Amino acid sequence: MANRLPSAGFSITVRVAVTADASAIGRLTTCVGSAGAIVTALDVVDSDHTRIIADLTCDTADAAHAAQVSAALHELPGVEVRKVSDRTFLLHLGGKIEVTPKIALRTRDELSRAYTPGVARVCLAIAENPEDARRLTIKRNTVAVVTDGSAVLGLGNIGPAAALPVMEGKAALFKRFGGVDAWPVVLDTQDTDEIVRIVQAIAPAYGGINLEDIAAPRCFEIEERLRGLLDIPVFHDDQHGTAICVLAALTNALRVVGKNIADVRVVVSGAGAAGTAIMKLLLRQGVGDVIAYDRVGALHRGLTGLNPSWQWLVEHTNAGNYAGDLSGAIRGADVFIGVSAPNLLTGADIAGMAKDAIVFALANPDPEVDPREAREHAAIVATGRSDQPNQINNVLAFPGVFRGMLDAGARGFTADMALAAAKAIADVVGEEKINASVIVPSVFDARVAPAVAAAVRAAARDVARPSSHSTDWEPPEQA
Amino acid sequence: MANRLPSAGFSITVRVAVTADASAIGRLTTCVGSAGAIVTALDVVDSDHTRIIADLTCDTADAAHAAQVSAALHELPGVEVRKVSDRTFLLHLGGKIEVTPKIALRTRDELSRAYTPGVARVCLAIAENPEDARRLTIKRNTVAVVTDGSAVLGLGNIGPAAALPVMEGKAALFKRFGGVDAWPVVLDTQDTDEIVRIVQAIAPAYGGINLEDIAAPRCFEIEERLRGLLDIPVFHDDQHGTAICVLAALTNALRVVGKNIADVRVVVSGAGAAGTAIMKLLLRQGVGDVIAYDRVGALHRGLTGLNPSWQWLVEHTNAGNYAGDLSGAIRGADVFIGVSAPNLLTGADIAGMAKDAIVFALANPDPEVDPREAREHAAIVATGRSDQPNQINNVLAFPGVFRGMLDAGARGFTADMALAAAKAIADVVGEEKINASVIVPSVFDARVAPAVAAAVRAAARDVARPSSHSTDWEPPEQA
Repeated sequence: MANRLPSAGFSITVRVAVTADASAIGRLTTCVGSAGAIVTALDVVDSDHTRIIADLTCDTADAAHAAQVSAALHELPGVEVRKVSDRTFLLHLGGKIEVTPKIALRTRDELSRAYTPGVARVCLAIAENPEDARRLTIKRNTVAVVTDGSAVLGLGNIGPAAALPVMEGKAALFKRFGGVDAWPVVLDTQDTDEIVRIVQAIAPAYGGINLEDIAAPRCFEIEERLRGLLDIPVFHDDQHGTAICVLAALTNALRVVGKNIADVRVVVSGAGAAGTAIMKLLLRQGVGDVIAYDRVGALHRGLTGLNPSWQWLVEHTNAGNYAGDLSGAIRGADVFIGVSAPNLLTGADIAGMAKDAIVFALANPDPEVDPREAREHAAIVATGRSDQPNQINNVLAFPGVFRGMLDAGARGFTADMALAAAKAIADVVGEEKINASVIVPSVFDARVAPAVAAAVRAAARDVARPSSHSTDWEPPEQA
Repeated sequence: MANRLPSAGFSITVRVAVTADASAIGRLTTCVGSAGAIVTALDVVDSDHTRIIADLTCDTADAAHAAQVSAALHELPGVEVRKVSDRTFLLHLGGKIEVTPKIALRTRDELSRAYTPGVARVCLAIAENPEDARRLTIKRNTVAVVTDGSAVLGLGNIGPAAALPVMEGKAALFKRFGGVDAWPVVLDTQDTDEIVRIVQAIAPAYGGINLEDIAAPRCFEIEERLRGLLDIPVFHDDQHGTAICVLAALTNALRVVGKNIADVRVVVSGAGAAGTAIMKLLLRQGVGDVIAYDRVGALHRGLTGLNPSWQWLVEHTNAGNYAGDLSGAIRGADVFIGVSAPNLLTGADIAGMAKDAIVFALANPDPEVDPREAREHAAIVATGRSDQPNQINNVLAFPGVFRGMLDAGARGFTADMALAAAKAIADVVGEEKINASVIVPSVFDARVAPAVAAAVRAAARDVARPSSHSTDWEPPEQA
């Protein structure tokens, strides 16, 4: 969207010194408002008879806008701007997660149980029965968030160190929404063989692997090979988390417009990690027809020399072998799903879709079509943005999915789990609440993660898991 | 030691049902005492007019002793043993550390600063200036505790999963004593090249690497190669942590007996990771002469085909080229340091040492010589045991060493830091407290880690570090 709105993601705190007359504070807030920003807090830091020192916190639209706001304040008569702090950077200082002991270490007795000599018996128990690692160590509740920094958010290949703030944030979300302990593993290599070997080597401490922000098509091979090597679930969130959330949203959107998934024609823009996983899950759920788009245009059987994942798509989608442009493809289509790039479509394109069209324009931060324009022609519009209705956000899926897999002691992630998770997310909205602007629950809806976890646990029942056996170190049951 | 004493490391809780007469509880505690165990808690769980259900917690000597105590209770008339729980295992259930967000994620604004879209700007800042990772991510305070499970405690090569309880415990100690966030990295490989490559690849998230329980001589090569590859400190605790603590203890022991380090003759039993590092640090501190022992006997210049670390020792120790047995070597020696195996020496051997002999018998859990026998002949005896005076425990060193290195933004660990850390530990004891039974501070002495950290920070001043530059995301200074 061309005109971005002020948001908390671009919040700044400006420390100003102003002359202490009755209208001083009013001039400040008026100035910020005139500059198009929003004052969210004002704290007086110090004052004397002639002067006020205040911290003025305001949401701005982006970095350039923040600089404009500071400059506007600076030009006010009697105002001195002393320092501009970026609240987002302040929040990230020193990192966003920490490692906390769950045990007390106050006395020598506590030390001797948690560490030497007591710990030696726990080690020996695991050496004798490796399955006990799932009970006696962090493995029971811990997931690695693994990236090579090759496809971070919309920023591209920025490398492992620059990817770390995202992985830390993901770890924080895992704990906040799923009670899962997640740890960032940012790898200084982008070699497929090395990544596979490293993740295999670090796996003993983890009950699951969450691959994150790894570029396609490398991500497909890494995931597939790790699944063959490890006895814990491997889940690429950019693929499966997104696919689960899209299927959940589409399920409810189709309920609202009264269409059947088997009858709809779907166009997907973006055949990378997310798009491919979305299409595979939709096909598994029985969608009627899908056409996939990427930089080469429509994926159709006239194309040659494709990588294996595109070759698979060519063989399983585009029943009519359409080879025209994107605008032509969506003419008459029921559903558009974009996981690609900003501003590919106009309102006129959306107007040409079938009656009661569904548009998921998920490119971040700027969608494939302006959602305000799209809403004039489509029955339902969803985006990845938090300032629009129907935000499709992976936070709805991954915490509950891993919570369920860890609780089940699952050895792998399956398509049945994905379908169950999508249904659980869709069902949280409820018959009485559902409408064109509410096809997914809020990310803060506390019912989502437990519902997803329960669905995944149930779907995991078929997957082999260790038998539960009572040992002498189980807690005594209550009398 | 042949007769182990009951300890908290072997504490059990026995749930019993007893007839409710006036002497019932007394019979239970008498029985436990007669069996040689110690009652530490008694909790009544339930009762009615004729019966009491109680949880009896007692310290035992080892697993066999715990079974004897349970059996003795079971044989008491009117007593039914319902369940025996091992308190050490209970403490380890589900692991000993967790990952905790340092930030609130209650509202959409908080989410948009900690994660998308706000986090993107933090990522870009690091991509532009990689040094910012030390400010804006967990790297600033986080250490990897890396093992291949090849030499875990005294248990040997038990592998990565069975090593995990130790690494978790170590991480808990790092936080408890040094405020350092430490994360277990247990590797399912024992190949030197792979371990080096993996640690190099995971390093971007960490401000330091703590190698742990990796067998010698592989550990030396891994450490040396990683030091050449990484711009963060690499510290093998089994080597340097132990060496620092031994030097600290020896410094104070020599103060007590009034000998100069340059004049003493030292015999070291065990030329593995710990012994080698101890000898190198003692030589650097100017010790007079050292003889190293291992399975091949005294390391001397008549031996051939030695690995590089033993070859180095042959060239730098054993000035008199002594080739006899251990008992002969310590005859007339001032200091014995054992980091090897139990019961190699007798009281008579110690009696043959020089006047005011110093004996550090550090093999765990059973020392090289019974400390009670050694104390009859030596002026000062230290062990690794928590139930004896002068416990030499690495907890005295590693939390403060890493605290100091992280605070300094150190690029490497140096011998000067080790010497400074040892002096800091020794000095905490203080002139007025020092005596033959108090040559090291308690592990719970809160002054130790800050003193070590300050000494290491000072020693790190010479090591190149990034210049500190003010940016617009620094917190506003107070007016």
